[in-house]
Amino acid sequence: MPILVMKFGGTSVATIDRIQRAAKRVALEVAKGYDVIVIVSAMAGKTNELVGWVNETSPLYDAREYDAVVSSGENVTAGLMALRLQEMEVPARSWQGWQVPVQTTSAHGSARIEAIPPENILKKFAEGMKVAVVAGFQGVSPEGRITTLGRGGSDTTAVAFAAAFDAERCDIFTDVDGVYTTDPRICDKARKLDRIAFEEMLELASLGAKVLQTRSVELAMRYKVKLRVLSSFEEPSDDAGTLVCDEEDIVESNVISGIAHSRDEAKMTLISVADRPGIAAAIFGPLAEAGVNVDMIVQNISEDGRTDMTFSCPTDQVLRAQTALNAAREVGSINFHDLDCDNGVAKVSAVGIGMRSHTGVAAKMFKVLADEGINIKVITTSEIKISVLIDRKYMELAVQALHDAFGLDKAA
Amino acid sequence: MPILVMKFGGTSVATIDRIQRAAKRVALEVAKGYDVIVIVSAMAGKTNELVGWVNETSPLYDAREYDAVVSSGENVTAGLMALRLQEMEVPARSWQGWQVPVQTTSAHGSARIEAIPPENILKKFAEGMKVAVVAGFQGVSPEGRITTLGRGGSDTTAVAFAAAFDAERCDIFTDVDGVYTTDPRICDKARKLDRIAFEEMLELASLGAKVLQTRSVELAMRYKVKLRVLSSFEEPSDDAGTLVCDEEDIVESNVISGIAHSRDEAKMTLISVADRPGIAAAIFGPLAEAGVNVDMIVQNISEDGRTDMTFSCPTDQVLRAQTALNAAREVGSINFHDLDCDNGVAKVSAVGIGMRSHTGVAAKMFKVLADEGINIKVITTSEIKISVLIDRKYMELAVQALHDAFGLDKAA
Repeated sequence: MPILVMKFGGTSVATIDRIQRAAKRVALEVAKGYDVIVIVSAMAGKTNELVGWVNETSPLYDAREYDAVVSSGENVTAGLMALRLQEMEVPARSWQGWQVPVQTTSAHGSARIEAIPPENILKKFAEGMKVAVVAGFQGVSPEGRITTLGRGGSDTTAVAFAAAFDAERCDIFTDVDGVYTTDPRICDKARKLDRIAFEEMLELASLGAKVLQTRSVELAMRYKVKLRVLSSFEEPSDDAGTLVCDEEDIVESNVISGIAHSRDEAKMTLISVADRPGIAAAIFGPLAEAGVNVDMIVQNISEDGRTDMTFSCPTDQVLRAQTALNAAREVGSINFHDLDCDNGVAKVSAVGIGMRSHTGVAAKMFKVLADEGINIKVITTSEIKISVLIDRKYMELAVQALHDAFGLDKAA
Repeated sequence: MPILVMKFGGTSVATIDRIQRAAKRVALEVAKGYDVIVIVSAMAGKTNELVGWVNETSPLYDAREYDAVVSSGENVTAGLMALRLQEMEVPARSWQGWQVPVQTTSAHGSARIEAIPPENILKKFAEGMKVAVVAGFQGVSPEGRITTLGRGGSDTTAVAFAAAFDAERCDIFTDVDGVYTTDPRICDKARKLDRIAFEEMLELASLGAKVLQTRSVELAMRYKVKLRVLSSFEEPSDDAGTLVCDEEDIVESNVISGIAHSRDEAKMTLISVADRPGIAAAIFGPLAEAGVNVDMIVQNISEDGRTDMTFSCPTDQVLRAQTALNAAREVGSINFHDLDCDNGVAKVSAVGIGMRSHTGVAAKMFKVLADEGINIKVITTSEIKISVLIDRKYMELAVQALHDAFGLDKAA
């Protein structure tokens, strides 16, 4: 039998009624002849409740106990989903991470899946079981302790199962009906994409389009898992949602697939830094140690042996960055005149694999922003992405103007 | 190090504050030099919530999935308790049933513990861990699936651990401060017992004094586990609670240790049954198959080859009993004139190991009831117990009168 992986997020299993609705979707695929592996999250809100209890009990908690507590929500949903399927006369059983086993590293709280031996589940499929319901987000360490994969980890569980079982497709059911050309709350012309390339999805995911966990997309790309994002609240249809797939599987596409944004960015500038070999390491080493996620970096042209160094990070990490840099100055490992901080910026990015073969995308982007009177503070580019840092108050305007200019409201 | 087992019931771990209070009790014993195994129930109300979801999802549920869902509450408490102890700088970790492993039969929903290999936990004690927090009520079947031991099963988990680890004592923390001579809500002279024999506790537990799960007392008796029942809401002291122990460890005791009662009993009488060999089997076989818990049985003297057969069962099983008996009459396996049913009776019992060596206890009990004008409908006796079925409206009166007559308000 061909195997399908179907993953239901927290809002899709938030109540007994919704679990029933999800089970019906699964039964439809079983009726088509698939053996199905269902990955479930905890009922919406449950994981937050458990995390709250852990924090209340022990602010600096032991991550092994955190994992033991927080993983329990998925076990409940897995059992209930199996029961519901049985009630519909679909042979099903639940599996907790350690039962499969989902073998992970010992990095509690953000473990990585190392292997998923398929034998136990395949044996049950051979005996006539049609659905294996697996608790997402969790695994078991080499020491036999329960691990979790980090928030959103059930997406990664789903893709890892699809890879391990060579599944025909991995369907991620969520509360949005697919991946959009941009955030529909900002731009009412946003259009749902039928297909998007792994590389593009990866850039969008890491740029703050919170549809899929970044790691799950990386994994899908590496193992060529056909990933579909769709809503569990829509009627089933073959072209529902967005297929995340290989570049070659996308016949036609716009040069730009989507405009992403990230609202809460800060721009920090070290003014008049002594420009010498190793200065970048001296600056960004302490920031990394302090847990600051530095995103864009720009170094000005050097003048009289001194330069300005600008970088961006999330606004809630500004204090940490300031503390780390001032400490480094005090011990003399770096030397700068002043530390300038702008908390009022946002990042807007254009993403598309078409940029590889089309020139002039950056020029067009800069002209569109200039025409709207928006000043660009920092620019970074990758092979398939251009990001700019601008004043936050222009963010919505920039997104809308770029969406129009690149014709994203119309399919290619 | 000597080992102590401490079990905390649902009300003792109902909130983060109460878990903290329980952790303090554990830390006190660690300070005295014990290695402690803590057995925890789910936070009060959690198991009922999970059972509710299972019933809503699948009224005739698969007991294996029921167990997978319902066992999750204990995992949460175990992790939180371990975190709390760590916060108090007591080296602790949590263990789920399958991690120990607590090996049980495959009778899901009411599994029996078959073995608890102590190696894994002893190894951690040897490495300096002071407290092993174990999720109660659960185990793992030979097939590697999660099992539960039935409601109240955490008591049994606790006693089984005490036996497996040869613990010095097994303390059961609950919301009452011990075992009483009778129900204090019915008789204000009820007195807390300092000690009670296993056999007596067993009779009291099965007679409806809901302090301990019956199976845990059986297990404690078989393995000579010193069992103490005490309140987690009282200040710690060495003579707190009630010690359930071997008969020989009780120096002085009253002839009768306690008066138990069971309110919701029904008396059913098959009138004019053909009296022939095998008739009892023909009656009680179908009742057992229908899941009716028959308690007392009385057969009248036979007359003209016919007799009356009376038995008692819980009131909520009367309908099931009637259906089973009428069905048996229809297929001709039994033959009776009428089925009389009295839903308004209660059972009152006097329990005490002193009855073995003292005569006249039954006579005294009957006289006390007669003096109060209470008619006895059915009598049964065991070596250490006399039970009578009486009109429910006299139950409180009977308990109070017997408590007075046997001098239970005063220690021996």
